[in-house]
Amino acid sequence: MGQAKSSCRGALHSAFDYETPKTLVVPSIAVGAVFRFAQLLVLVYLVGYVCFVQKAYQDTDSVVSTVTTKVKGYAIVNGSAHSHSPQFRDVADYVIPPQGDKSFFVLTNMIVTTNQKVSHCPEIPQPSTVCSDDSHCTTGLKDLRGNGVRTGLCVNYSDTVQTCEVISWCPLEEDTGPNKHTLMDAAENFTLLIKNSVTYPKFNFHRRNIMPHINSSYLKSCVFNSTTHPDCPIFRLKQMVSDAGEDFQDMATEGGVLGILIDWTCDLDWWASRCLPKYSFRRLDDNNRSQVLAPGYNFRFAKYYKSPDGLESRTLIKAYGIRFEVIVIGTAGKFSILPTVVNLGATLTFLSLVPSVSDWFLVTCTRKRNVYRKHKTTHLKDDNEDHEDENKQSVINEYFL
Amino acid sequence: MGQAKSSCRGALHSAFDYETPKTLVVPSIAVGAVFRFAQLLVLVYLVGYVCFVQKAYQDTDSVVSTVTTKVKGYAIVNGSAHSHSPQFRDVADYVIPPQGDKSFFVLTNMIVTTNQKVSHCPEIPQPSTVCSDDSHCTTGLKDLRGNGVRTGLCVNYSDTVQTCEVISWCPLEEDTGPNKHTLMDAAENFTLLIKNSVTYPKFNFHRRNIMPHINSSYLKSCVFNSTTHPDCPIFRLKQMVSDAGEDFQDMATEGGVLGILIDWTCDLDWWASRCLPKYSFRRLDDNNRSQVLAPGYNFRFAKYYKSPDGLESRTLIKAYGIRFEVIVIGTAGKFSILPTVVNLGATLTFLSLVPSVSDWFLVTCTRKRNVYRKHKTTHLKDDNEDHEDENKQSVINEYFL
Amino acid sequence: MGQAKSSCRGALHSAFDYETPKTLVVPSIAVGAVFRFAQLLVLVYLVGYVCFVQKAYQDTDSVVSTVTTKVKGYAIVNGSAHSHSPQFRDVADYVIPPQGDKSFFVLTNMIVTTNQKVSHCPEIPQPSTVCSDDSHCTTGLKDLRGNGVRTGLCVNYSDTVQTCEVISWCPLEEDTGPNKHTLMDAAENFTLLIKNSVTYPKFNFHRRNIMPHINSSYLKSCVFNSTTHPDCPIFRLKQMVSDAGEDFQDMATEGGVLGILIDWTCDLDWWASRCLPKYSFRRLDDNNRSQVLAPGYNFRFAKYYKSPDGLESRTLIKAYGIRFEVIVIGTAGKFSILPTVVNLGATLTFLSLVPSVSDWFLVTCTRKRNVYRKHKTTHLKDDNEDHEDENKQSVINEYFL
Repeated sequence: MGQAKSSCRGALHSAFDYETPKTLVVPSIAVGAVFRFAQLLVLVYLVGYVCFVQKAYQDTDSVVSTVTTKVKGYAIVNGSAHSHSPQFRDVADYVIPPQGDKSFFVLTNMIVTTNQKVSHCPEIPQPSTVCSDDSHCTTGLKDLRGNGVRTGLCVNYSDTVQTCEVISWCPLEEDTGPNKHTLMDAAENFTLLIKNSVTYPKFNFHRRNIMPHINSSYLKSCVFNSTTHPDCPIFRLKQMVSDAGEDFQDMATEGGVLGILIDWTCDLDWWASRCLPKYSFRRLDDNNRSQVLAPGYNFRFAKYYKSPDGLESRTLIKAYGIRFEVIVIGTAGKFSILPTVVNLGATLTFLSLVPSVSDWFLVTCTRKRNVYRKHKTTHLKDDNEDHEDENKQSVINEYFL
Repeated sequence: MGQAKSSCRGALHSAFDYETPKTLVVPSIAVGAVFRFAQLLVLVYLVGYVCFVQKAYQDTDSVVSTVTTKVKGYAIVNGSAHSHSPQFRDVADYVIPPQGDKSFFVLTNMIVTTNQKVSHCPEIPQPSTVCSDDSHCTTGLKDLRGNGVRTGLCVNYSDTVQTCEVISWCPLEEDTGPNKHTLMDAAENFTLLIKNSVTYPKFNFHRRNIMPHINSSYLKSCVFNSTTHPDCPIFRLKQMVSDAGEDFQDMATEGGVLGILIDWTCDLDWWASRCLPKYSFRRLDDNNRSQVLAPGYNFRFAKYYKSPDGLESRTLIKAYGIRFEVIVIGTAGKFSILPTVVNLGATLTFLSLVPSVSDWFLVTCTRKRNVYRKHKTTHLKDDNEDHEDENKQSVINEYFL
Repeated sequence: MGQAKSSCRGALHSAFDYETPKTLVVPSIAVGAVFRFAQLLVLVYLVGYVCFVQKAYQDTDSVVSTVTTKVKGYAIVNGSAHSHSPQFRDVADYVIPPQGDKSFFVLTNMIVTTNQKVSHCPEIPQPSTVCSDDSHCTTGLKDLRGNGVRTGLCVNYSDTVQTCEVISWCPLEEDTGPNKHTLMDAAENFTLLIKNSVTYPKFNFHRRNIMPHINSSYLKSCVFNSTTHPDCPIFRLKQMVSDAGEDFQDMATEGGVLGILIDWTCDLDWWASRCLPKYSFRRLDDNNRSQVLAPGYNFRFAKYYKSPDGLESRTLIKAYGIRFEVIVIGTAGKFSILPTVVNLGATLTFLSLVPSVSDWFLVTCTRKRNVYRKHKTTHLKDDNEDHEDENKQSVINEYFL
């Protein structure tokens, strides 16, 4: 029983005996100062950079958002080369696609080719299409740079020029490039209403860009201005383009892509109530016209008509204009235990390196380094050199050196 | 040669001599218990929170997905105010845009203005448009709240009201707001098929929401139900809206945006076979009608016609309905060495703080703290106070205190 | 004053006295080698895996991008079953939606039903629609698998078959599935120009997929090829489909979704100038036709016409084709202090575990473990067993054991 008690006590001791390093206290102001200064450095880094600058104690979440848009405005435009009557255009005419998505196109300039029918007509004059007789025009040739399949005939394009005849939607579009004459310049006064709801799912945080303090009468009269009306969700097209550092008339003539960035970056620990959208504007396509190949933005679409006799015709429109893209960005941060522990742990590791630095300073740079070294470190003699008896003695000697 | 051998041995020693801290074993159950308990706390945190709750040993990847959608159903609707004949509508009529994208609009209610032509007509009566003679109507004025450019005339809108005449698409739309009379209420029985393929590129994991065990006959008859048919990819519109906590008739009348969330969050370490989509539904626009300005969702579009004499007319449609947005979310986790090491390392740092806590407990809280302190710590006397001889002596004394 | 000086010195000492562990130097090559080897292992892991493979010293940012697309090409197609005249189609006819978004559909095959009007006509024969007299056809029944609302009559569909009459857009579409006869096979030679601007906002890094060294004449003649022309932003549709491992004719006939992945993954520390887009192609919908229900990709849309008497008719098109989705992916990495510190710290923690391993080796595996243990560790006797005097003695004994 005494044995059992003893072995039990042995097990208890092996589990609970506490092993702690023996230490030496060195009364050196110099070393102490180095030690404290190194500790301070790490702490300043921890508190200053990790906590304040990087907010590494926060878990983050990306924004999930919905955007609906609505453009308002109308314009009277000069007719095109072919139809000289002025035209009236409203939202249903110039917003493509019409459904108020976060990406939409405002048609500001166009080349219209009316009453196209599938038939035969002469090609647009180009080096590869000009001909003097039928032998220059290979029947059935599908030139990818051309506009249709060749019939094999060489016909009069004008009084002076003959070109190969093609099967295509005729008459062909005469693409002379965008010109300022047909520009719908009233578009600069159109307004855009953006409705944007955001959610940070991880933090169950919802918000809307139309703030609770905005009332109906303010909404009817306000226009966004980054300094005087930063909360108004109604934007003038010209203002947005000029905020992006571009000229509206230029951009509307040749076409372009304008990003409307809504930034919902928020610190939900302290300033959830100040979590407000910040609007900014940036041209997204390349605008350096001298360097850039294929500048601007345009596309072709058609409206189809049927005559009473069942024949289909179309109006082809080469549309120039501004594509607006509402891009909602944002990251919210909120205190969370895991990133805090990870980042704190990583920094504390550096705190545990501080004694190594101080020890090195202690045994190499101080005046009394030999004394310190002697008391700090005990040397066992190499077993291979000496007999064990001598070794034992030398170890004992070391204690009294 | 003896010297060379000796210096070589010296270099070997300086490289391979092993310096280890001297330790003191304290046979105190109290301190040992504190030490083991603190270690246990850190380990429980490590295993429990970091590994099980946060799965910090996993690398994560975000889902990449493709969605195609297809709506089915048809409806007969009461005619509008102007055309009293009932109308028949199928998918090609009410899905905008038609191409089966992940975001699409189902037209459920509309205000139709037929046979609009660019011409002159009186404005809709409003405080700013009512007039009694021509002097109230400035020629050429483009009122952004109005519908067209003023001609300068004041004309009869009705027998009792005169308004300024404008150039616009005439007749003007009479926007009396959405009304339940014209609602396509059969839309609640329309069905939506969602085909969704997802990929986690980092883990080379592919999956489809139409499971291999679903056969053709099941697909022809099933309708999604979160409890009885959670795998069926065919959804009834009404069911989705009511799962989002909304009333279909209300939402369809005024318009709204409904999110269909497909959650593919998966743990690919253990349950890759159980990586299944979870569907949920949420209204994305703000629905609290009393608080919200500009509620609902609508837009205008037009169909263009040409009469035999070449004049263009259009039918303007103010469309109300539900925009569905399929939002695929998900993060997959799988064991990876880097996050494991980082998170393990950060936690182990805390394990290395445990001895500091125990040491503090040992030298301040135990009954025999003076004995422990004496054996643990050696004090070198301050060099500035005493002669070195005395100091040496005192150090030696300490060994025999 | 002497007392004040003394207490001041005491405070100074408690703040700046430096406590350092006492150490024992063991001249054992074996232990030293184990120690150095373990250190080496951790360092190799740190440098090799963390720095080179995972680049854990970098902060990362996700790409923000804009894409505009433009398809070129035209084709002559065989007429459909009803209109035998060949048809000519260009971009405005076959690209849906037309506005050059990052996701667009190229119509390559279709089933056309012309001149539909809302009226009465017999259903398409199916088990549920075939009838022999009016009693089989419930008036007003809206069969969701059918095409319209039943009138209650049973009428001749053909000379041999009678079906229930429905109110619908008549004549009904005869959906016989996609067939190769009506395929616009010239679509394989169409070309696609992709303009893609990317930004890494965190690093203020902008780039365009049309490189500065590409000039106008190269752009007019080049076609992308992953080996010979990897920088050309013009793609042949057939090449893209075959790069994705698919057959163009098959995919164009039945429809499908093709992903064009542009990978901008870049290391901005060293090779910012080599930050170039890498194009790859992948079929995004499921193509294993034997296993997959509802394969392919198609949708229905309509063109609306008005006859001179004001009646609306439509041409219904069931469109098959390839939906192209340009997906821009990419992560850029650049040196940053926070991830470096976190990852370095986590790894250094493991370095601080190395002495524990070596200590264990020292006191359990070496030949002279008893000698080492004796000099390294001092055992205080358990206070509960012995008197303090004996305990003191035993400690002293230990020094001379």
